[in-house]
Amino acid sequence: MPDAVTMVEVSRGDFVESVHRGHAVISRADGRTVEAWGDSELVMLPRSSAKMIQALPLLESGAGASLTDEHLALACASHSGERRHVEKVARWLKDIGFDETALKCGPQVSEDAELAEEMIRTGEPVTRLFNNCSGKHAGFLTLARHLEANLEYVDPDHPVQLAVREAFEDVTVAPSPGFGIDGCSAPNFATTLSGLARAMAIFAEAREDGTARERAAARLRGAMFAHPELVSGKDRACANLMSAASEPIAVKTGAEGVYVAILPNRGLGVALKIADGATRASEAAIAAILVRLGALHRRHPLVSRYIDSPILNRNGSAVGAVRPTDSLLA
Amino acid sequence: MPDAVTMVEVSRGDFVESVHRGHAVISRADGRTVEAWGDSELVMLPRSSAKMIQALPLLESGAGASLTDEHLALACASHSGERRHVEKVARWLKDIGFDETALKCGPQVSEDAELAEEMIRTGEPVTRLFNNCSGKHAGFLTLARHLEANLEYVDPDHPVQLAVREAFEDVTVAPSPGFGIDGCSAPNFATTLSGLARAMAIFAEAREDGTARERAAARLRGAMFAHPELVSGKDRACANLMSAASEPIAVKTGAEGVYVAILPNRGLGVALKIADGATRASEAAIAAILVRLGALHRRHPLVSRYIDSPILNRNGSAVGAVRPTDSLLA
Repeated sequence: MPDAVTMVEVSRGDFVESVHRGHAVISRADGRTVEAWGDSELVMLPRSSAKMIQALPLLESGAGASLTDEHLALACASHSGERRHVEKVARWLKDIGFDETALKCGPQVSEDAELAEEMIRTGEPVTRLFNNCSGKHAGFLTLARHLEANLEYVDPDHPVQLAVREAFEDVTVAPSPGFGIDGCSAPNFATTLSGLARAMAIFAEAREDGTARERAAARLRGAMFAHPELVSGKDRACANLMSAASEPIAVKTGAEGVYVAILPNRGLGVALKIADGATRASEAAIAAILVRLGALHRRHPLVSRYIDSPILNRNGSAVGAVRPTDSLLA
Repeated sequence: MPDAVTMVEVSRGDFVESVHRGHAVISRADGRTVEAWGDSELVMLPRSSAKMIQALPLLESGAGASLTDEHLALACASHSGERRHVEKVARWLKDIGFDETALKCGPQVSEDAELAEEMIRTGEPVTRLFNNCSGKHAGFLTLARHLEANLEYVDPDHPVQLAVREAFEDVTVAPSPGFGIDGCSAPNFATTLSGLARAMAIFAEAREDGTARERAAARLRGAMFAHPELVSGKDRACANLMSAASEPIAVKTGAEGVYVAILPNRGLGVALKIADGATRASEAAIAAILVRLGALHRRHPLVSRYIDSPILNRNGSAVGAVRPTDSLLA
């Protein structure tokens, strides 16, 4: 199998201090590879980059018939736990007759640093609503209620997860070789990198007037593009790259160095995995690939910070940089 | 040049999710390599792993004649900014007629999570004393005063840094190809990985009744071993590995995946660099190499957590692990 390719270099002064290698695939919906780096057939866990796939049964089943684009963006989100995220998920749960105690995702300190400090000062408890996956879990609960199933919805044999697995295998066009348990306690199904890229291309090609699955995929991709800061948060890479794009695109990060992109205008899907799992590298690499494809301008201020990201010392001086290599950009 | 070697695997369920590659050298003081992985001649920045080298001129010059082992451990430290660290550095500065405003290292939030929260609650300001390098900077100031030099001691042409460079080139036994600016604004001199390992072996072999340099090196290595929690902090890897060792050893982490070890009983020095800069991997790798050498027992509770480090989800369940590969352990 092909080795990972050097994708990102971290420099300090005149020295390359660290390097990040990775794998990436640009695919069409029929499975044709447009371009690839490293091992396309790498078996990997997509982590949170699969959230739009995990949300498909919510819409296909009819469970989410009354949900707005904001709900759907949150279902696909790794949100920052800002007030707006937490309040919207709390209202969603209330609307379906639950509260935060029904969430199985565990608590997480808000990634909004100002809010996190405010909560420490005021003694406000860190609840499961602040978990970056709380919207995904609200979607799971909505589907569980619709299916009249029990509320142990993170059990891999629960009807919700069986539906997720079926959708996942359908859009990756292969049986999943298994799952790991994600940070939020839900199963995360494995696939190949090319399978994940193909799934993103299927999302890109999905017609708004197509099959139930196509309509669901088109709706989710549109909800992500319409609400980039609900999918992530203020000044997060997903929000910045979607906002900066010169055409409608949806992008999504996943833990351990995963990134995916959906490019409807081009009928393309992208999936990448940094071998060592570093987010600083996955952000640089997805930005570079989207610049390469022409969907982002490298000098756009919301893009250039990922193409040439300064490393600051504790006095605030730039002493190094994180940069994608020419293997991706040139 | 030889490629980096896979040193650490990160698993989730049945899947290897991420891998960390790196380079390592075990050396004798005369430069003979005992064992090596990857590229021994990798040019690298040792970052904080060089702090005991940066402290040599403090003792050799006589500037540190009245300093205790606690001072010297702090001079070699990347401390956690706990109360004891901050108070001891503040007292040191006061004793030489300075206060924290003389430090050039910039402020840093305490890595003692409980204290950091308390400081947010009480509004206590984050000062430069909390910077993990404040002890190193107190040492630089002590030397600057002794040399009757100005206080711009992080300038690469300042007498303090010229003395550091001379000592650095002497124990790495090669001219340094240059420097990067560290997180604390001091110059960090580059060397090869084999040069850094040889420097650690020179520290290991240094006789307490030897030359001025040998006496300084032996004193610093002893101060580190005597005060592992001043060199790092409560439950930090450096403290845990030094405390668990079955013989006196000194170990030190550096940013971007660097680790070094000094083994006086064996006359050996170790230096390793994780190519992607991940600390979770450098901790696993140095623990594995020290187990391999027999200086640590892999089942010691302060060691096993780095040999088989569980990954917990947000509900506190173990869902994966970080483990060194057999290339280091077996």
